[in-house]
Amino acid sequence: MKNTDILVVGGSAAGVTAAISARRYYPNASITLVRKEKDVLIPCGIPYIIGTIGSPDKNLIPDAVLSKNNVDFIIDEVISIDKAAKTVKTSSGNSLTYKKLILATGSSPFIPPIPGINLPNVFTIKKDTEYLRGLLKALDQSENVVIIGGGFIGLEFGDECKKRGILNVTIIELLPHCLLLACDEEICILIENKLKESGINVLADNKVKLVGGKKRLEYVELENGEILKADVVILGIGAVPNVELAAAAGLATNKEKGVYVDEFMRTTDEDIFAAGDCTQKRCFFTGRPALLRLASIGTMEARVASANLFGLRLKSECPIGVFGTVIGDLAIGSAGMTERSAKQAGFDVFSGEFETPDKHPASMPNTKNLKVKLIFEKNSRVLLGGQAYGSMTAAKVANFIGALVQKRMRVDEIVAFQMGSHPMLTPSPIANHIANAAEIALAKIW
Amino acid sequence: MKNTDILVVGGSAAGVTAAISARRYYPNASITLVRKEKDVLIPCGIPYIIGTIGSPDKNLIPDAVLSKNNVDFIIDEVISIDKAAKTVKTSSGNSLTYKKLILATGSSPFIPPIPGINLPNVFTIKKDTEYLRGLLKALDQSENVVIIGGGFIGLEFGDECKKRGILNVTIIELLPHCLLLACDEEICILIENKLKESGINVLADNKVKLVGGKKRLEYVELENGEILKADVVILGIGAVPNVELAAAAGLATNKEKGVYVDEFMRTTDEDIFAAGDCTQKRCFFTGRPALLRLASIGTMEARVASANLFGLRLKSECPIGVFGTVIGDLAIGSAGMTERSAKQAGFDVFSGEFETPDKHPASMPNTKNLKVKLIFEKNSRVLLGGQAYGSMTAAKVANFIGALVQKRMRVDEIVAFQMGSHPMLTPSPIANHIANAAEIALAKIW
Repeated sequence: MKNTDILVVGGSAAGVTAAISARRYYPNASITLVRKEKDVLIPCGIPYIIGTIGSPDKNLIPDAVLSKNNVDFIIDEVISIDKAAKTVKTSSGNSLTYKKLILATGSSPFIPPIPGINLPNVFTIKKDTEYLRGLLKALDQSENVVIIGGGFIGLEFGDECKKRGILNVTIIELLPHCLLLACDEEICILIENKLKESGINVLADNKVKLVGGKKRLEYVELENGEILKADVVILGIGAVPNVELAAAAGLATNKEKGVYVDEFMRTTDEDIFAAGDCTQKRCFFTGRPALLRLASIGTMEARVASANLFGLRLKSECPIGVFGTVIGDLAIGSAGMTERSAKQAGFDVFSGEFETPDKHPASMPNTKNLKVKLIFEKNSRVLLGGQAYGSMTAAKVANFIGALVQKRMRVDEIVAFQMGSHPMLTPSPIANHIANAAEIALAKIW
Repeated sequence: MKNTDILVVGGSAAGVTAAISARRYYPNASITLVRKEKDVLIPCGIPYIIGTIGSPDKNLIPDAVLSKNNVDFIIDEVISIDKAAKTVKTSSGNSLTYKKLILATGSSPFIPPIPGINLPNVFTIKKDTEYLRGLLKALDQSENVVIIGGGFIGLEFGDECKKRGILNVTIIELLPHCLLLACDEEICILIENKLKESGINVLADNKVKLVGGKKRLEYVELENGEILKADVVILGIGAVPNVELAAAAGLATNKEKGVYVDEFMRTTDEDIFAAGDCTQKRCFFTGRPALLRLASIGTMEARVASANLFGLRLKSECPIGVFGTVIGDLAIGSAGMTERSAKQAGFDVFSGEFETPDKHPASMPNTKNLKVKLIFEKNSRVLLGGQAYGSMTAAKVANFIGALVQKRMRVDEIVAFQMGSHPMLTPSPIANHIANAAEIALAKIW
């Protein structure tokens, strides 16, 4: 029986962040992190092990971040929690007692109920180095790869498969366009065109009927009857929260939504907190359940959880989604609602768009255009979201937009907001992307 | 006599922005811009004409931004304003009437009263293509260049002179370090080291006594007696507002501070607005007069001015300084107060610092470290400023910090703030630079 002040269950982004934050606030506490995995993969980096990075071993969260913060870490699986006794049991037969417990059990790939989905060479995006080495091996013997799911991860897998030299890569997306949950149609189309430019076959507005083959995987059949040859299938269609441990302990959970937490990141037991992909989330704009499972949200939740362990000090807000990616030479970033998602949620919106070189003058070396779209609510004039695309600064610009969204800024406040500029580093102050997009929107309603 | 609804005097960043904004709000108004210069230089781009861009002609604000916004522009100089008659006279003998007037007369280089300052080959940073061609010509016949003033412009001139191949380049700064008004000492030292690495002689904590030579410039003598050979001297020690036109028209002005404006950017005449380097500014934090003359502030003021021309609709806030630059391979950004300036202004401060690779995993190609420092006020816990330095994303990060400063965010709010992440585009969500620097600061006071 080991005693620890703070016990973290789970060693990915949220768990590691919770442990680091706890160390900062409680320098003298004993902190223990228990995780199943020998090596912990950086979740968002997984697509890049195929091409850009080249190996799962180069995409690990270094254990040094735990040891240098004096966090004890144990490779084992917590299989039960006794809330009353404040102890946990592990699969190796050990027990630990805790004063405060943080659950960061993460999520698992969603596996759709498609016939044939259990055939060999159908891979999910499992956070497991051994499993992913198996995927790389299978890819190296493949000419035909079919990716089911045209969200960020699916697109990044597609792009990276091409970088690895795979002959035929197809992405299948249920919605009318890839990325449509994060970007408006016009931007989705640009991204799809980039995918096509690098030889990827994009089949949006399509549904998989079955995955087939005798003994081994041979093809994917679509509901429209089309049949695609497939040596490897990769599933990238979302994740489900790992709630089993919390549910068995009697904490309030929902199988699809996750472990219930309040704004202090407390579960229904006041000594047990939760953070990351395993928690329930609500939309920043509508208060409705949100399926946002992002490492950037999980780490924010972890920081809030750790701040509150021994006294409630910090509240979290409902998250907005802030996304970014690069396909070919096109970077995009998105924060908050798209025009489409805002309308679907019942908001009356107006928007402004502006395109500008990302340095000034445009004769500066390596200048690329960046376009910004901002979406506002008509009555309150508050910013609901925005997208940036073009140059590699897109994600940073999306983070800036995300800050304005979280501070609920109005369009007129954004026009009068100050941003710095420099010839080598930003657009011209005359052509400031954010201020101009906002001004163009404002002029529509004034 | 030409009649125009909106008359803009001045064709640099603030004037051009005012005209574009006015066009957006008043699609049917006649808009006229009068400027002295045939070609208008991008002010912050001027240092780069020496090396990176190579010529003043590649560093111009394109006239197309005026013509495509249906702004009439006249190359002429407004020499007097008759407020009562609402007319102006120009040096070519023409008159114009206006309904609303926007003064964007800018600033001129400050010329210190040093003996010998009027010798040939002593250059200021005049926004004049012909004059700057003269500077380039002089540089090409020079082995010894002395730059007086170690602010942003002075440093950028020094770096670019080296890129052009000048043998001996010296920067002289009065304060203990270059850039000390924008960055804390530790960052100034990094920048000075970068300058030294490229062979530049940095003499901080030094004062020029005189500029000497028989007939032509030969040397610069410091107050400590040191004598530096000089074929060219460049003065980069600030700017003074161009207030003569406004003062002669009877508007409230101050020779050092500029044209008085209220938060709507109105002068003391309700039909005359002003924006940019010519206006008086007050510090965001202290309310005291501020000497911030930045294109990014001027364009913000211009947007506010134009929104208010025919009805008061938009208020400006006192500006914060948001700066960025690149010296060698080191980019830096700064927003709001430094630790030094905050203490000097009487604030009790605490701070947090955090360094992280700018992509994740660090095995991503072209990963560079980025370090962030955030400075907070102790009683209110509000963010006063921050600096980012290292990778080329520094200026974008400074803009993000600037947004948090302008929204007066507290340290605990910043810890719980959400930023997106992506392997190729940002630091790891675990190592988010802003959240971690804030958390490290917060842990100090909790």
